[in-house]
Amino acid sequence: MSILLAVDAGGTNTRAVVVDSAGRVLGYGRAGRGNPTSAGIADAVVAVGEAATRAGAGVGRDDERSTATIAMAGEQSAAFVSAVTEHLGAFGWQRVVLEPDLLGVFGSGTHRTEGYALIAGTGSVAARVVGGRLDRVVGGRGWLIGDAGSGFWIGHRVVRAVVAAVDGQQPATALIEPVLTQLGIEVGSGGSADRARVLKQMVSEVYALRPVQLAAFAPLAFAVHDDPTARAILVAASQALADLVAAVRVRDLPGPVVVGGSVGVHGLLAAPPELRRVLVPLAPNADVVPVPDGVVGAAVLGLRGAGVTVDEELFATLQTEVARASRTS
Amino acid sequence: MSILLAVDAGGTNTRAVVVDSAGRVLGYGRAGRGNPTSAGIADAVVAVGEAATRAGAGVGRDDERSTATIAMAGEQSAAFVSAVTEHLGAFGWQRVVLEPDLLGVFGSGTHRTEGYALIAGTGSVAARVVGGRLDRVVGGRGWLIGDAGSGFWIGHRVVRAVVAAVDGQQPATALIEPVLTQLGIEVGSGGSADRARVLKQMVSEVYALRPVQLAAFAPLAFAVHDDPTARAILVAASQALADLVAAVRVRDLPGPVVVGGSVGVHGLLAAPPELRRVLVPLAPNADVVPVPDGVVGAAVLGLRGAGVTVDEELFATLQTEVARASRTS
Repeated sequence: MSILLAVDAGGTNTRAVVVDSAGRVLGYGRAGRGNPTSAGIADAVVAVGEAATRAGAGVGRDDERSTATIAMAGEQSAAFVSAVTEHLGAFGWQRVVLEPDLLGVFGSGTHRTEGYALIAGTGSVAARVVGGRLDRVVGGRGWLIGDAGSGFWIGHRVVRAVVAAVDGQQPATALIEPVLTQLGIEVGSGGSADRARVLKQMVSEVYALRPVQLAAFAPLAFAVHDDPTARAILVAASQALADLVAAVRVRDLPGPVVVGGSVGVHGLLAAPPELRRVLVPLAPNADVVPVPDGVVGAAVLGLRGAGVTVDEELFATLQTEVARASRTS
Repeated sequence: MSILLAVDAGGTNTRAVVVDSAGRVLGYGRAGRGNPTSAGIADAVVAVGEAATRAGAGVGRDDERSTATIAMAGEQSAAFVSAVTEHLGAFGWQRVVLEPDLLGVFGSGTHRTEGYALIAGTGSVAARVVGGRLDRVVGGRGWLIGDAGSGFWIGHRVVRAVVAAVDGQQPATALIEPVLTQLGIEVGSGGSADRARVLKQMVSEVYALRPVQLAAFAPLAFAVHDDPTARAILVAASQALADLVAAVRVRDLPGPVVVGGSVGVHGLLAAPPELRRVLVPLAPNADVVPVPDGVVGAAVLGLRGAGVTVDEELFATLQTEVARASRTS
């Protein structure tokens, strides 16, 4: 029997499943960051290989390993394709196909081939999907000139608001204490000399980070969402993400809108009612489907590439099986 | 006769004057960037030395060279003090005193010892001055977590707006053409494939810069200030800078508010009437004094340190003499 490897190679985690043509999951594996843009080619190839090895651990010797489908963000460099093909080839995988992370996310939420995907994680990007392929993509472009509404975007505003509050430029905020704690800075008395010490330490700690690491402060805004400063940042983020989705939506293509990424899934879409009331809805009048990652979609893409029709029933099997395997792995 | 050296060591340019106790300018010199934080200690010392050498070229052998006063932004490192003291010592300057750039700017605009200073250049920072010293400073902290309303802040928004406009997320803007031209990117047809090429080139060009270099795009917002996107950025910048000044102002200390830095002096305060009408005033009901740099203030600090009383008349002489020397050097 022919089996497929499907990988979601993310900037933080990599997940892999081995599936057969009936949508049964034969194995599941995890590893660290597998995106060559953020992790570098060598580390990304190792992570993909680790996740694949774990996913393939229970697979029989007689199963014919065919295609590995890797869903990932960013440019597809020939160097990465070549290195990962060689690496997975050593485990018996005959061919590697790279797919956009947006299609991995989209295919993790629906068996349909028309609709929209939004990824709101460290970065933010949205797409219209037509005929199972990306028809139009907006957003992305990284922390410095794009990624509006993303984890970086929120975390950056959180840290800036704390600097301005400690400096006396802006009102005090409930963000001060958790941000300083996360930076490893003692909160102190709030007196003038103490404020100067805190600001100096903040400059020293924050500029020692890669800017994109400010995304780690985004969850703090959700944690203290009653605070006016935090709330204003989250409302602005929801507006930016809603604008992103609006930029790809067209009237004659109703949905669904599949949402991936921690800001979208664990933040905005999981917001408590009192916060949700003030947030801008991501996609009004659409069926919004949060997904934990893009590995089901990578499997769907692999199966379709192998000529298998992924209908509603097969998709449901795949989704259930992957969720079960993920919980028990 | 005893003479003094006064230096304004900036992130882009360094200026030096040699003055006597009557406020006469005996020489003026320029050099490149002289701030150790941005240029590195070695290059900063060389720049200060060059400017000092040029300023001292016409000085007689009998003049007793006493103190060199250097106004500059940032932390005063012992390593820089030691290196620059040794370097200027070789030219006969007996002692080096470092002063904050905010005091250099303040003292370039008034002989008074009470008031406010705002620097709005690549970064932004404001201070209250009491008894000729800094009483309270707000802002600064660099491009990532501070510097609201600064050249970086404006230039960053300019480039982001162009990315969003080319991407179809935000309305078209008159900023597109000048930003692409400054990045060396061909403007092209505006079709879908062409937009993708432009965005890819923008990512590649912008991420090759140090982030702070985005300040170079700030003047483009002033150049096309009739454009709604550019105008909104400039209004927001003027609001941020007005907030900064408001954070240091107190009722019983009326002013003046001395303004330095290109965004403040050549941008906001030199805005044409139709733009000025929509900008938020930097300091309502205060005497706002733009200054070209901080070298007069460095000289004032040097003279005061030497026991000279800098009254209105001596200040006027100094200002006139430095302006003349600057024009003819």
